Amino acid sequence: MNLVKISAEDRRFKLDAGAGSDAVHSDPVYSFAVTNIKLDSGLTGTGLVLTMGRGNDLVCRAIELLGEPLGGRDIEELMANFGATFRRLADNAQLRWLGPHKGVVHLALASITNACFDLWAKSRGVPLWKLLLSLSPTEVVQLLDLSYLEDVLSPNTAVQLLETELPSRADREGVLKSGYPGYDTSVGWYQYDAEQIAEKVKRSLDEGFGAFKLKVGGPLAHDLSRAYGLRKIVGDQATIMFDANQQWNLPEALTACKELGALHPLWIEEPTHPDDLFAHQALAEAIAPLAIALGEHVPNRVVFKNYLQFGCVRFLQPDCTRLGGVSEFITVSLMAKKFGVPVVPHVGDMGQIHQHLVFFNRIAIGHPETFLEYIPHLSSHFTHPAVLRDGRYQTPQYSGSSTDLL
Amino acid sequence: MNLVKISAEDRRFKLDAGAGSDAVHSDPVYSFAVTNIKLDSGLTGTGLVLTMGRGNDLVCRAIELLGEPLGGRDIEELMANFGATFRRLADNAQLRWLGPHKGVVHLALASITNACFDLWAKSRGVPLWKLLLSLSPTEVVQLLDLSYLEDVLSPNTAVQLLETELPSRADREGVLKSGYPGYDTSVGWYQYDAEQIAEKVKRSLDEGFGAFKLKVGGPLAHDLSRAYGLRKIVGDQATIMFDANQQWNLPEALTACKELGALHPLWIEEPTHPDDLFAHQALAEAIAPLAIALGEHVPNRVVFKNYLQFGCVRFLQPDCTRLGGVSEFITVSLMAKKFGVPVVPHVGDMGQIHQHLVFFNRIAIGHPETFLEYIPHLSSHFTHPAVLRDGRYQTPQYSGSSTDLL
Repeated sequence: MNLVKISAEDRRFKLDAGAGSDAVHSDPVYSFAVTNIKLDSGLTGTGLVLTMGRGNDLVCRAIELLGEPLGGRDIEELMANFGATFRRLADNAQLRWLGPHKGVVHLALASITNACFDLWAKSRGVPLWKLLLSLSPTEVVQLLDLSYLEDVLSPNTAVQLLETELPSRADREGVLKSGYPGYDTSVGWYQYDAEQIAEKVKRSLDEGFGAFKLKVGGPLAHDLSRAYGLRKIVGDQATIMFDANQQWNLPEALTACKELGALHPLWIEEPTHPDDLFAHQALAEAIAPLAIALGEHVPNRVVFKNYLQFGCVRFLQPDCTRLGGVSEFITVSLMAKKFGVPVVPHVGDMGQIHQHLVFFNRIAIGHPETFLEYIPHLSSHFTHPAVLRDGRYQTPQYSGSSTDLL
Repeated sequence: MNLVKISAEDRRFKLDAGAGSDAVHSDPVYSFAVTNIKLDSGLTGTGLVLTMGRGNDLVCRAIELLGEPLGGRDIEELMANFGATFRRLADNAQLRWLGPHKGVVHLALASITNACFDLWAKSRGVPLWKLLLSLSPTEVVQLLDLSYLEDVLSPNTAVQLLETELPSRADREGVLKSGYPGYDTSVGWYQYDAEQIAEKVKRSLDEGFGAFKLKVGGPLAHDLSRAYGLRKIVGDQATIMFDANQQWNLPEALTACKELGALHPLWIEEPTHPDDLFAHQALAEAIAPLAIALGEHVPNRVVFKNYLQFGCVRFLQPDCTRLGGVSEFITVSLMAKKFGVPVVPHVGDMGQIHQHLVFFNRIAIGHPETFLEYIPHLSSHFTHPAVLRDGRYQTPQYSGSSTDLL
């Protein structure tokens, strides 16, 4: 079961007008920098990371450069101690300069890591969630690179966190039958007008969704008009969230959050620059009890650690296609558990991998059941697109991580 | 004077055995992702960023993608309001996803920006330092993208900082005659043995240097042996600094800094992960009065703002080939001035551009005269390599930013 060929593939998908648009990303071409890893048996693992189109080729080239050392490795041997392999890849003596642990090289690492996990699950003939749940706490922690987290998450602490949850696991396994709730991002893109939003929200309500995200970050009067419009359609009981996609500076965020807060959103997402811990801290204090959510542009476990230590983020949104893949996602989920912050992934993978990971987070780590973002625009391109029923992600039954593309 | 052609060039330089090595970068191939911008007059601007070899091509490709919108622009018109142009380039709606403002795309932006400044100075027939000193405070601030810095550096604050220094400028212009002091990094690479270090330090002392950096981050006994060796050669009066290049985790850094502190280094550089504000804060408190220096892996002005707000870094080491070029370097220098922290640039450009910038920092911003890192390994490849006399950088007299390569 050796890895015989690692290659990259540049896949780009045109979206319908307005779909995917936000205040910052005005013309997205949802694209995947895909890693394909082939075993000598012929089995192939597929790893994904998202880009907005241009530059997707840069990530593909970085996958080729970064993935070279994996050739010839046995998949079980590789995954038995994946944390050490991850660290070696991330600290490539020359490529590391291009990050470190962020940007194009880290996206490439994510794609490679995700392909390894997909291949591992396929080689065992089980869905990724099932594989992860079958591992002992020690085996899980061996998957993780916990370096530079010594002050909050030693390997022992990580094992203990998982062991603590073992006795109560059975109580949480019902979610595999009921499915995991989704929330709908695809109703409220920035370039959708009021009529489009109304139409899409109504369809989404009919499909069973109870939570909806709206893109903001334009002129405040325009944002407010859209936001009040959404609240009116969905009613006072529905959950709504506003997402500024980093568009505001701190003074703008302070003003906008106070106005938008009157509509009682569950959270304000990415209010300002994702590197600015101090701005988020100042904002969190000023707008409390209104909550801040972020994570889709937080590049690695170290920056997440800092956000958790600062205590200013109430919903953590890591993404295994921004972080270095499935394993760094689990690392961040463990830290979040330690700090008591719920994990609500951003879905750069369109929810395909994360549907597996939220089951793991819920059952093995004991995170609360929240909901998983839903963006269906690419579902026709997947071999096994995520299936939702009554607004809930249904537990995937095919082997692997649901990343194979048509 | 229009920009007619923007192109990228991949230049890689083999170093002598051991040169450039540190605890993390074990086999550096000093490489420049070069931006060449040609005016219709035939004049060419050259911009540099450093990489460690592999992946240099990724930055070159990103330069081509990111630089497209500059074609046809008039150089004076472009530079009259470069801050706005910088922001538009940095926030390219698709490429931004690959950062934002960090990693490969930000390195590419730095190379482009540096080429613009080089071309601008050449088109005016003056060295970059002279051009920058000829600008009014308002003109300087127009060069800068101050977005996301509203809480510490508004455009008005930036103009005021510069205006405050105007009356005392003449007192500081003597540095143009005396030259700017250098410190020698090239004596203490990680893979140099005791004998090599001794030989190189002696030559460096003869050349007039009074400050020397040693790479650490190996087994502590080995680090200490090298460090005590260096102190013995240079004597108690010389300035020494230790550089761990991010190799330690926090517990390791705490131990190592306490032991190495006995040798009274001016600073400990990059003790741990460059994204970890909390670790640096904890370390700074534990090892005070020993100082921490960092900056070469801090990607943008927002992260520098956070470090300054945290107050844990005593010597700031921004690099205009890691930050988005000359203009973001000036932005960070202005913030540092406001927080009272001296700027001691890291020289990914081998000091070619930074020799101009330290004269500007000293005279226009009123920063204290510290010293500029000196690494001569690539000097034979430059048309006008930096000239040092008695350990001091001599004021460059050729037009441009000293970035042209043979």
